[in-house]
Amino acid sequence: MLTSPALAMNDLFPACGDSKMRGLMMDRPLLISSLLSHAANVFRDQEIVSRTVEGVIHRYRYAEAERRAKQVANALRGLGLGEGDRVGTIAWNGHRHFELYFGVSGVGGVCHTMNPRLHHRELAYIINHAKDRFLFVDTTFLPLVRAIAHRLKSVQHIVVLCDRANLPDTPLNNVLTYEELVLSHSDQLEWPEFDDRTASSLCYTSGTTGKPKGVLYSHRSTVIHSYAIALPDALDLGIATSILPVVPMFHANAWGLPYAAALTGAKLVFPGPALDGKSLTELMNGEGVTVAAGVPTVWLGLLNHWREHETKVASLERVVVGGSAPPRSMIQAFEEEFGIDFRHAWGMTEMSPLGTVNVLTPSQQGAPGGERYDLKCKQGRPVYGVELEIFDEQGRPLPHDGKTFGEVRVRGPWISSRYFRQRRSKSHDGDGWFATGDIATLDPSGMMQITDRKKDLVKSGGEWISSIELENLAAGHPDVAQAAVIGIPHEKWTERPLLVVQAKKGRSPTKDDLLAFLKGKVPDWWLPDDVIFEAELPLGGTGKVQKAKLREKYDDRYAAAR
Amino acid sequence: MLTSPALAMNDLFPACGDSKMRGLMMDRPLLISSLLSHAANVFRDQEIVSRTVEGVIHRYRYAEAERRAKQVANALRGLGLGEGDRVGTIAWNGHRHFELYFGVSGVGGVCHTMNPRLHHRELAYIINHAKDRFLFVDTTFLPLVRAIAHRLKSVQHIVVLCDRANLPDTPLNNVLTYEELVLSHSDQLEWPEFDDRTASSLCYTSGTTGKPKGVLYSHRSTVIHSYAIALPDALDLGIATSILPVVPMFHANAWGLPYAAALTGAKLVFPGPALDGKSLTELMNGEGVTVAAGVPTVWLGLLNHWREHETKVASLERVVVGGSAPPRSMIQAFEEEFGIDFRHAWGMTEMSPLGTVNVLTPSQQGAPGGERYDLKCKQGRPVYGVELEIFDEQGRPLPHDGKTFGEVRVRGPWISSRYFRQRRSKSHDGDGWFATGDIATLDPSGMMQITDRKKDLVKSGGEWISSIELENLAAGHPDVAQAAVIGIPHEKWTERPLLVVQAKKGRSPTKDDLLAFLKGKVPDWWLPDDVIFEAELPLGGTGKVQKAKLREKYDDRYAAAR
Repeated sequence: MLTSPALAMNDLFPACGDSKMRGLMMDRPLLISSLLSHAANVFRDQEIVSRTVEGVIHRYRYAEAERRAKQVANALRGLGLGEGDRVGTIAWNGHRHFELYFGVSGVGGVCHTMNPRLHHRELAYIINHAKDRFLFVDTTFLPLVRAIAHRLKSVQHIVVLCDRANLPDTPLNNVLTYEELVLSHSDQLEWPEFDDRTASSLCYTSGTTGKPKGVLYSHRSTVIHSYAIALPDALDLGIATSILPVVPMFHANAWGLPYAAALTGAKLVFPGPALDGKSLTELMNGEGVTVAAGVPTVWLGLLNHWREHETKVASLERVVVGGSAPPRSMIQAFEEEFGIDFRHAWGMTEMSPLGTVNVLTPSQQGAPGGERYDLKCKQGRPVYGVELEIFDEQGRPLPHDGKTFGEVRVRGPWISSRYFRQRRSKSHDGDGWFATGDIATLDPSGMMQITDRKKDLVKSGGEWISSIELENLAAGHPDVAQAAVIGIPHEKWTERPLLVVQAKKGRSPTKDDLLAFLKGKVPDWWLPDDVIFEAELPLGGTGKVQKAKLREKYDDRYAAAR
Repeated sequence: MLTSPALAMNDLFPACGDSKMRGLMMDRPLLISSLLSHAANVFRDQEIVSRTVEGVIHRYRYAEAERRAKQVANALRGLGLGEGDRVGTIAWNGHRHFELYFGVSGVGGVCHTMNPRLHHRELAYIINHAKDRFLFVDTTFLPLVRAIAHRLKSVQHIVVLCDRANLPDTPLNNVLTYEELVLSHSDQLEWPEFDDRTASSLCYTSGTTGKPKGVLYSHRSTVIHSYAIALPDALDLGIATSILPVVPMFHANAWGLPYAAALTGAKLVFPGPALDGKSLTELMNGEGVTVAAGVPTVWLGLLNHWREHETKVASLERVVVGGSAPPRSMIQAFEEEFGIDFRHAWGMTEMSPLGTVNVLTPSQQGAPGGERYDLKCKQGRPVYGVELEIFDEQGRPLPHDGKTFGEVRVRGPWISSRYFRQRRSKSHDGDGWFATGDIATLDPSGMMQITDRKKDLVKSGGEWISSIELENLAAGHPDVAQAAVIGIPHEKWTERPLLVVQAKKGRSPTKDDLLAFLKGKVPDWWLPDDVIFEAELPLGGTGKVQKAKLREKYDDRYAAAR
């Protein structure tokens, strides 16, 4: 017999959009403020340590960080911050920048972090495009702001991240100091609650072409991403972790680490402007850093310092490396020379940024050295929250055989759906997927390996030819010093590959030599239609061949065939 | 100069409910099906191992589990499963139950897991109250279903979790076998997408009073909870984990482990019905189990087996223990005798279930033995996602001083907002908080310690007196074998404490002896108004004093004072 009280079902099941039955769980929003509140309540004595611009070490705890975040939130409200207003920051990694992450978004503002290394013109464009009403800047960058001030259309307040005593002379008007602003406002504030899809932070990505494009994160995306990056097979953060984000806070929110540290109660160590091997080593030793995260160049500096001074950091268990592919020798150095776990990760600003992390399975871990490092060079497996597939040019999904390559497309709750104030975007048109522009293989164990950038592929007869694979093969010829493969417009095939070679000194290989060398190693239709010899290939600042220059130079090479 | 294209802002910022600016992140729903799809794509060769009811070991991989989950989903749709329809399960922990978790909710159904140890009457009540249209049962429980079949009002299909060869004789009509159902349906299915607040699973909690109450989980709550329990300081799950959920899948979804295992790619090991020390030890050794989760009684059986046979499980790194407070001696045994990390956790069905986990900070970890185990006996810190506070009877938050106790209230995205088809609930009336009925202290390091159930507190003059604290003190008197403190109705003070004592054999303490012994150890107004001596205190099945019986017997004790 059914003995339940006679209730109208409609009263108890508020309809979802499509009239499905709702669960009866609290519909609590995932707000960034709740990360810091959690830390302040549950890990209130955990430390946040910062090397300041002035060079001294600043040290306080999560509970105080939250009080000051509330003070800066009250100050911003006092200065007229409205919901959705953008607050620009040009700053190093430090405790004040950390407070802004939470203080700004906590009351519905958008924390817009900026890369101070951009050209003045670009920086001014970004500030104006974002319509930043506030700028918070480290003293280091005050001259920079001075230099672009005449171009800025929306900025009403400039706040320098220091106290009055450390404020440099500046001809700028109406400059406030952060400490005065914070100290003159109450720390009494109940963080407001609102829809967790509300915008929280903004970061521009400067592609190789076109204007910088803004990625606008939400509270929901940020909090879910924080859970994911803290997982054991991602950054593995907990109460015993002491984490050093070397990756800048203006670079995809320091990969989300300030948020994830609050979520897990990890100790946070901010390096400020001192990113050289010696300074980092000192800071890590002083603060018992167990995990550090950054781009390969930083780790190169660190390795060089350690070798030169026959030292290391005893507490350091793990480095997490992303931003660009680390050389195999670096992975080996950390693991074999220094006994430090090396986690290779991949992502991009449009992905909050985490996409994949390379953690080997127990059986892969036991593979022989060479094979093991082949695996460690891959970009890894997607973390849950990122759906990742490879597609051919017709948009068909490709097999996960470790050989077939295609463009990586991703989707998930922390992936960009559109650029800020930009109606069209080729990357976002793919039927709900974001097209990364990276070309990769996926192997049966779920591991991704990036093989190319899409713009470097040669599109021939509706199929792709990997420029990198051809280059690597050509570079294996005993007479070749360096090789580049570019796609040249072709009437019949759209593009056909052209091999450009710099021969080793004293050697003079011929076109036929090289084509014969390649033949059989790749499908016949991959073979370059022509080979050109250059005395020296044009190199960019990072040592990479500037393919754009070669493309420009040889654009007409196959014109006869058109 | 502002050079951005002139776009209407409204086009680019779909309004949130309250007109705030939305982030530009994909609004992907957090669906349970995506957990299994992730595992099938990214960890496709990871194993799921089950000891079946028939006693043999079944072994397959995530990719196959997803295919079969799709088959059962197609089968359910074929049998007329509608969105929101409840599908009951009465089953052990095993691979078919796992498939139902995903197959049912994946197509919008609600997986309603049931405890087979309930009384027939209660079980029938629950099935009728939930209006289950389907019942999936292990062969073990077919007689049980037979016994209650005449009471069931809504069940249309009974499916037995076996193949035709293993189907026992049963007088029930229209019984299907799971294997025939699965094998006769296609594995072609694109998991549908829908609002992630849709109901996904249902579990009834049988309180000590009143009818069982249904907790209705959603996809959103389940997925966020899965992230949280996989964190390093929760269950710490990853690709190298082999996890054995001893906690039943009918008990708050086995604490969410089947979901979290899929999220992280952990190997899953299901024990089926064999939960004794010997069977568990064999299974753990055979499958290299690294983490096991269950209630204290299970671990007692395991410890006894290990001691008796001078054995252990070499691969086992960690046991996670919840459901009721483990004795200090058990924590010590695992850590000192067997070198296994012991994680004490707390939660309840209404909390999905995880609330707190006890992981010591590095400095707490280094505390001297006695102090360290005092800390390990606490219930731990809330994981991010659970806001947890203690309140006095007037609803005022209390200090986190490790001494002041109050009722634990919680809120968060995986906390129950209401019971299923029940309009009123005292536990849910607290201004957005769920009142757990547990009484606890919170210490400055964020650790919670449960001290009482609210119903056992003595409410005197608007303040609470801890029955457990008085009992523990009284039990310290040399003449006392066992002591219980209950609240007795009192006209002036609402309730006043009564101490009921069972003296040690041959001893005869007096009322004055005991009151003098307590005096000075607690505030004077805590002192019991009277002391009663009983030859033997009434004990329940688990060895606890049955306070309800004492309350009934002595209800009028202070009537004179009324």
